[in-house]
Amino acid sequence: MTVDGRRVTIAAIAREAGVSVPTVSRVLNGRTDVSPQTRERVEELLSQHGYRRRASRQRPGRAALIDLVFNDLDSPWAVELIRGVEDVTHASGVGTVVSAVHRRTTSTRQWLQNLRARASDGVIFVTSDVTGPVHTELQRLSIPVVVVDPAGGAVADVPTIGATNWAGGRSATEHLVSLGHRRIGLISGPKELLCSRARLDGYRAALDAAGVAVDERLVVQGDFLHESGYAGCSTLLDLPDPPTAIFASSDTMALGAYEAARRRGMRVPDDLSVVGFDDLPESRWSSPPLTTVRQPLVEMGALAARTALRMARGEAIEMPRVELATELVVRDSTAALA
Amino acid sequence: MTVDGRRVTIAAIAREAGVSVPTVSRVLNGRTDVSPQTRERVEELLSQHGYRRRASRQRPGRAALIDLVFNDLDSPWAVELIRGVEDVTHASGVGTVVSAVHRRTTSTRQWLQNLRARASDGVIFVTSDVTGPVHTELQRLSIPVVVVDPAGGAVADVPTIGATNWAGGRSATEHLVSLGHRRIGLISGPKELLCSRARLDGYRAALDAAGVAVDERLVVQGDFLHESGYAGCSTLLDLPDPPTAIFASSDTMALGAYEAARRRGMRVPDDLSVVGFDDLPESRWSSPPLTTVRQPLVEMGALAARTALRMARGEAIEMPRVELATELVVRDSTAALA
Repeated sequence: MTVDGRRVTIAAIAREAGVSVPTVSRVLNGRTDVSPQTRERVEELLSQHGYRRRASRQRPGRAALIDLVFNDLDSPWAVELIRGVEDVTHASGVGTVVSAVHRRTTSTRQWLQNLRARASDGVIFVTSDVTGPVHTELQRLSIPVVVVDPAGGAVADVPTIGATNWAGGRSATEHLVSLGHRRIGLISGPKELLCSRARLDGYRAALDAAGVAVDERLVVQGDFLHESGYAGCSTLLDLPDPPTAIFASSDTMALGAYEAARRRGMRVPDDLSVVGFDDLPESRWSSPPLTTVRQPLVEMGALAARTALRMARGEAIEMPRVELATELVVRDSTAALA
Repeated sequence: MTVDGRRVTIAAIAREAGVSVPTVSRVLNGRTDVSPQTRERVEELLSQHGYRRRASRQRPGRAALIDLVFNDLDSPWAVELIRGVEDVTHASGVGTVVSAVHRRTTSTRQWLQNLRARASDGVIFVTSDVTGPVHTELQRLSIPVVVVDPAGGAVADVPTIGATNWAGGRSATEHLVSLGHRRIGLISGPKELLCSRARLDGYRAALDAAGVAVDERLVVQGDFLHESGYAGCSTLLDLPDPPTAIFASSDTMALGAYEAARRRGMRVPDDLSVVGFDDLPESRWSSPPLTTVRQPLVEMGALAARTALRMARGEAIEMPRVELATELVVRDSTAALA
């Protein structure tokens, strides 16, 4: 719904017509419970503003679908987000179409074609930087978009759902400080992701609050994956004055740190304390069970689904930027400094 | 497509009409590249056999969709299967609708309603016993069904895709025997699943071939989940004459065995060798990395998707029972008997 490239909201149409937002939705959905006069007035405004009715709206008895799009389906937390989305869509009689764009341009084009063909009611992107042609095309098709764990900056009209990454990074580090650790290593996540930066800043804030100077040699760069956790921990343990505890910015990197410690004959937590971030099922199954910062992935998926469904019904989203609370879960991978 | 409860294949219609199977499909799909005479003859036979055209076939420009149905979205291998299915559907311009029936009757009914509304082209069930009302309803709707890792017995007309579980169980046990182990424990999977039984029989076959008598006290029951691996391994290590090696019938149970060993101050593989089954990403990330039997989950998902898409096009499936090869992947959790 664009006029000269500007996006017109259903709320604006409703205001101009002097009716409620649900009434405009009813007109758009071809429902019969609207008076002929109201319908006419709304239809006129929609046409005046160049509103292009989506093919899906014209098709009676069509399938209700929400698309859930990952960059790649290779992350163990994908299934947690899928669970959260599916719980909500299932209850609403809506199907969840799961796909991956595989970071390839050709693949993205194909995906957009498929999306158009199935006339999806909304799209939930995961860890995506929604700029460029995909976003423009979705806007042109008037398909609502929600982003979970946004990669880059905010985009107007696109609600985002994340976790309190800064608070999580701070509580992980505070926990280690409270156990007596002062040399605390950080294996950070990808630089381009906002969540990585927030966790790093939380780590710095906790050290500052404890009066511990940040030693930049104790901060190493990872990419959330296992191998980088192994490499990062190895680098830290090779320092002349190695850390006694490590905060890994993802659970999979924390497990990489476990393996680096094991290869050196060090035991977790006796010789090295480790904290992760995510609280994937894997963190409960690791040996020892991992102390980590719980990111409410299922709840994040559920909220994303509810938001997308509300947008599809033409409702306004009052809080377009939401961060759900993280929580420290203490298990067996952290111990008091000997 | 049923007559008096008997299922009529498109191949049978084609034979009777004296045309090819693709020609019948073209008629069913409302394609124009069929001569009027042929169309009339095929239409007559379809009607004669009580064929009920699916709603989806009558709707032009409809969305192409395949449903992928889990009991619960709680297994770490769900994402592997989703990847395999999505790779194939994505390339065909088909969406993958992922859902879970949550083993509740009300939920199943709701799911069936949603499936009808979206006129799915086919359904892939995972670890499902396709009997009872769901299957009957899908047959009535003429929606193709494929089962990955069937739980119970075979169902006529329903293709199944599994892995060579017996061969996998045998190679895991053979590997431990080749390392000098003779007291080898087995933590088995759920009794009701065929794959569990096949892995158990493979274990027995390998011991028989090595001339090692099966000690029934070394076989304990698990349910594929982490806790049961922990409990099973604890039971085995508490025996007066405990095993020196354990074959766990899933990777998550193998990780439970790791934890049971760690709690006793035992090291893997020095004090206990462990082999898993699945080759989930978690098995590479465990400490030590897990020796396991690779189940080609991505390939199984891809084959299921190709099979469902072919059935949706009305093609006959020549090989309705397929088992893809498993493969032993040796990592660091197994060592020669000291």
